[in-house]
Amino acid sequence: MESLSLTPAIDLMTGRIDLTHGAGGRAMAELIDELFRRAFANEWLAQGNDQALVDIPPGRLAISTDSHVVSPLCFAGGDIGSLAVNGTINDLAMAGARPLYLAAAFILEEGLPLAELARIIESMAQAARAAEVPIVTGDTKVVERGKGDGLFITTTGIGVVPPGITISGDRACPGDRILINGPIGDHGVAILAQREHLGFTTEVCSDSAALHTLVAAMISAVPEIHCLRDPTRGGLATTLNELARQSRVGMRVFEGSVPIRPGVAAACELLGLDPYYLANEGKLVAICPAESADTLLAAMRAHPLGTESMIIGEVIADPHCFVRLKTPLGGERLLDWLAGDPLPRIC
Amino acid sequence: MESLSLTPAIDLMTGRIDLTHGAGGRAMAELIDELFRRAFANEWLAQGNDQALVDIPPGRLAISTDSHVVSPLCFAGGDIGSLAVNGTINDLAMAGARPLYLAAAFILEEGLPLAELARIIESMAQAARAAEVPIVTGDTKVVERGKGDGLFITTTGIGVVPPGITISGDRACPGDRILINGPIGDHGVAILAQREHLGFTTEVCSDSAALHTLVAAMISAVPEIHCLRDPTRGGLATTLNELARQSRVGMRVFEGSVPIRPGVAAACELLGLDPYYLANEGKLVAICPAESADTLLAAMRAHPLGTESMIIGEVIADPHCFVRLKTPLGGERLLDWLAGDPLPRIC
Repeated sequence: MESLSLTPAIDLMTGRIDLTHGAGGRAMAELIDELFRRAFANEWLAQGNDQALVDIPPGRLAISTDSHVVSPLCFAGGDIGSLAVNGTINDLAMAGARPLYLAAAFILEEGLPLAELARIIESMAQAARAAEVPIVTGDTKVVERGKGDGLFITTTGIGVVPPGITISGDRACPGDRILINGPIGDHGVAILAQREHLGFTTEVCSDSAALHTLVAAMISAVPEIHCLRDPTRGGLATTLNELARQSRVGMRVFEGSVPIRPGVAAACELLGLDPYYLANEGKLVAICPAESADTLLAAMRAHPLGTESMIIGEVIADPHCFVRLKTPLGGERLLDWLAGDPLPRIC
Repeated sequence: MESLSLTPAIDLMTGRIDLTHGAGGRAMAELIDELFRRAFANEWLAQGNDQALVDIPPGRLAISTDSHVVSPLCFAGGDIGSLAVNGTINDLAMAGARPLYLAAAFILEEGLPLAELARIIESMAQAARAAEVPIVTGDTKVVERGKGDGLFITTTGIGVVPPGITISGDRACPGDRILINGPIGDHGVAILAQREHLGFTTEVCSDSAALHTLVAAMISAVPEIHCLRDPTRGGLATTLNELARQSRVGMRVFEGSVPIRPGVAAACELLGLDPYYLANEGKLVAICPAESADTLLAAMRAHPLGTESMIIGEVIADPHCFVRLKTPLGGERLLDWLAGDPLPRIC
């Protein structure tokens, strides 16, 4: 939509979303112009049509989409806006793709304070600028009070996979090593702390981060990476099970080598949660041939988002595709798929 | 995600969505495998990763995204599933793009009957097959009862614009002709009738349709089309105002030439609605040079989705960018932007 320069400004200080903001008319055009278009400003949005035209370098294209329904909207270390940008960038990066463009669709609940929306949109714009991935097109809808929950954001990203890179969840082979770029469970505990007003965990912040530059550094060092996946919903345990099943292999994880912050461990102990099932938003699991593992680890540790990287386990042959956790005392327990939902609406 | 062949089937007959279906674990994987993956089956979804890798022919890429929150979920002539496919295909087509791939993200409300979800997903899959545009990647989230409204679907599409085609909302010139491919207001009245249980309008069905083959035929006949836009939310009046403002021109529309079905006219009269502001989901406005208008009209009428096409007006010079409606008796009224919201959640 084109800017409506003759119309009065919307009230970003005290106004609230109402149904006219989703009706397709003047109020919607004002909201889009004065909030979204201003915050996300770029040449593609300025095309002013219901779609964006973009240039794409040659290569295979990666597409990923994610609805974000995290509750609360803001939490220690992030908010739904930055999460929506980082989450979709990460899903592209996990294919080895260079993220190029984002699309963002907003479902707003009637009554949402415009000031809160504006803060989140600014955070989203900042995350997109920091990642150098522009939001080139979008959509807004409004639902009646009680038919939504403040704000849902669906982000879709496209990116290009460089020639020669084949990273997929079905490529893990027995003998491969499993790496992670830092401690697990931070995001889950940060959300829980915010939701339940748990004072004792206030030092734990979400790890929400865009991992595409880390992935680029990893691929540059070890182009033969077999698998990458971000352990979000369901946590590390579920992601490893997904990869094991997809590659038809088993995995052995060394419990002592999986980094967990003391604050996360304490919160889990107190609340009866298992950190292996808690969501992460700035972590990735990498699987590579054993002979490349040290090179990959060094490359990861040299990147700001991988300083605490660890080799945490190995891929083994197993027709049952079990993921086993070896305890420091030599015991072993099965790390199964997440069953049930310990912590809904984490992302 | 990979198929979980060892797990029991979900109950698509009597089951309901619960929070575990969004948690990232086993229940979510089952839902995705047995419902979404089965209905949308294609080689890209079968990659089983959190993103799809696709091949793209050379050209400029068009991207468009839309959240769909229509209420009720099913209505005469369509449902939220087919609407979500057609709506995003249309936004791509309005740039002259050939739609290639769709991504779909679902926000499910706890308690949604799985049987209802399955019907809508099957309708969505059918619409995608009919349009020959595969759904290559997706996402599901679940929100608690009372924090959503059954089902919201966000679809994002990408397509390629053929070389030499430049269709944009800022290209209308004084002297150009304005065309539409059939009667207006059907979708709005169909939704309203369903929502309010209005028996008298049961003969009006939504016009929901994918317009990309019509657009391809139009471009083939008249490559120099200046503007295309689908008059959805806000209706024909708002779309013409958007185009007028974007191109910095005025428009004159001949009221007698705008097709309106008797059932729509009757519903509008009874309910005090203006058909010019009612949503359409299978209509497009085309603007082209005067000398091409008859050729374009003939091409539109030769296509099944354009048999009732009409030339409805002309672009004029006007620094105020007003859209004027000329009545059959020679009078004139201003066709302003939609103000307020006569009919929320129409798409």
